[in-house]
Amino acid sequence: MKIDVHTHILPPELPDLKRRYGYGGFVSLERTGPGCTRMMIDGEAFRDVDARTFEPEARLRDCDRDGITVQVLSTVPVMFGYWAKPEDCLDLSRILNDHIASVVAGSPTRFVGLGTIHMQDADLAIREMERCVRDLGMPGVEIGTHVNGTNLEDPAVFPVFEAAAEMGAAVFVHPWDMMGKDRMGKYCLPWLVGMPAETALAICSLIFGGVIERLPKLRICFAHGGGAFPGTFGRIDHGFRERPDLCAVHSTLSPRDALGRFYLDSLVHDAGLLRYLVELVGAHRVALGTDYPFPLGERVPGALIETVQSFTPEVRERLYSGTALEWLGIPKDRFLAVAR
Amino acid sequence: MKIDVHTHILPPELPDLKRRYGYGGFVSLERTGPGCTRMMIDGEAFRDVDARTFEPEARLRDCDRDGITVQVLSTVPVMFGYWAKPEDCLDLSRILNDHIASVVAGSPTRFVGLGTIHMQDADLAIREMERCVRDLGMPGVEIGTHVNGTNLEDPAVFPVFEAAAEMGAAVFVHPWDMMGKDRMGKYCLPWLVGMPAETALAICSLIFGGVIERLPKLRICFAHGGGAFPGTFGRIDHGFRERPDLCAVHSTLSPRDALGRFYLDSLVHDAGLLRYLVELVGAHRVALGTDYPFPLGERVPGALIETVQSFTPEVRERLYSGTALEWLGIPKDRFLAVAR
Repeated sequence: MKIDVHTHILPPELPDLKRRYGYGGFVSLERTGPGCTRMMIDGEAFRDVDARTFEPEARLRDCDRDGITVQVLSTVPVMFGYWAKPEDCLDLSRILNDHIASVVAGSPTRFVGLGTIHMQDADLAIREMERCVRDLGMPGVEIGTHVNGTNLEDPAVFPVFEAAAEMGAAVFVHPWDMMGKDRMGKYCLPWLVGMPAETALAICSLIFGGVIERLPKLRICFAHGGGAFPGTFGRIDHGFRERPDLCAVHSTLSPRDALGRFYLDSLVHDAGLLRYLVELVGAHRVALGTDYPFPLGERVPGALIETVQSFTPEVRERLYSGTALEWLGIPKDRFLAVAR
Repeated sequence: MKIDVHTHILPPELPDLKRRYGYGGFVSLERTGPGCTRMMIDGEAFRDVDARTFEPEARLRDCDRDGITVQVLSTVPVMFGYWAKPEDCLDLSRILNDHIASVVAGSPTRFVGLGTIHMQDADLAIREMERCVRDLGMPGVEIGTHVNGTNLEDPAVFPVFEAAAEMGAAVFVHPWDMMGKDRMGKYCLPWLVGMPAETALAICSLIFGGVIERLPKLRICFAHGGGAFPGTFGRIDHGFRERPDLCAVHSTLSPRDALGRFYLDSLVHDAGLLRYLVELVGAHRVALGTDYPFPLGERVPGALIETVQSFTPEVRERLYSGTALEWLGIPKDRFLAVAR
């Protein structure tokens, strides 16, 4: 069984959000050819995407070809819309969540959905998270690395994590709206440098801010193998130990102690680094994730895991499905009909 | 022989730079107790430092205790002053460079100096680099990860690298003025997350911008083990290969091909990560660096290298001195009297 915890999906059609809410900044979809769509923001091209972004059938064909049992579906981070008016972000979240739920309903043994919630208002976010979990049957939600510049440790955000821990909702943290992008106008640098920095900042914020320590039941997973965090872990932990006066003010849990308290996907594109990741947090905390169907993702899901010769069959089983099932809180037999 | 390529030093006294130049933003030094000094910027505390930051004797005592043959001295990045008027930055650079040269003159078998240059004006920067190399006998210079927000690949900066390659000056790149610091008000986050991101951006900028490709003779070393670059290398290289239309526009050299074309110090504070670093770029491209005498540095220089059991004596010799000598372009016998 192979579960891909990191895939993105969009509805094939979106309402005219600018007209619906009365202001711009939202994504619209423009057909540019057979199976080709351009995501536009206020008339500017954001990204070209193809049928795999929209069509469950195309995705399932790829899954069958690649041996993927289950895709975990989440929206594209540019859709988060935290900057919009809360009621508009809630409305947009519901559109996206209802769409994902409908895709899952069509193939419940092949797809699992994560909801998006309007993080700028904890009360409304919690209510939509409850709707996702209780009404739509989702195991959890996907959120951004920050809320309009506010880090995830902020007291205004804490109730969302607390509620997630209480209701057993899994949380997937994905970078968006990247720091430093004013200095990253070329070479995809917001994706190559900004995104990993975002995720490192989010993990640090949750550790140093005491959120990880206070919520031992929270099941939280970070995209792209935790971004820059694992590769700068030594420095981060050293900082905590050498400057407790500045770093250990809201948490007694050091970064090293926090290892094992969160999950990472496997999307690091380098065998040596994946081996390091598994050494650092353990195979029971790393789950296959591919960023399907986007070009910075892994084209052949699991190919990287296969290249690490030192992984035992038990380790591979954890990376391919065991960790994902634990993080999502889903029993294996939900998918067994397919896996056999 | 052990050479520490990454140590910082300041003059024991600085002129009143605000009065000297007629505007603020510069560091002043305030004695706060016996052997204790507070670095101040415009009346606000920046960092408390002790005698080891100023006194060669104190440094040599530590070196003797820790088995360090040679310290490579560079200024503290907050002193770069690229934001100041060019003639003021040049004046400040000369003060700092003359001080470092005087310390080296006092113990030429124990200290090596790197100059600082005013990167906002390539012509003046090159002239001061020439003075450092030819008149002051320095093997090279230390520069920041950007020049007032301009990345290092910028055509305005290129002549400095070209001149360094031509005159055989080693370049040490150190993060400063960190991206995202508006979101990093706590927990030393500009140092723990911002600095590694800065260095990743600098390395990417020099690779994607074609500087590494165009200057094969450039000997350039990045602080803190290359920051977030090695730990996100797979993603960066994948981006180059998957989106050549965006990433491979100024360089045919992929990030993977660029490995081996630059040096990294060893300051990563984690044995698994140091092993990964050496696997990635080779022991011949990693040099002992400790950030002495600052708290985010390695307290016992070389302790991390010692903990990696799989390193052979040949690898250790490279990490301790061989790589440093090659990067600096200094023959071993300059220090042999001490090393024996």
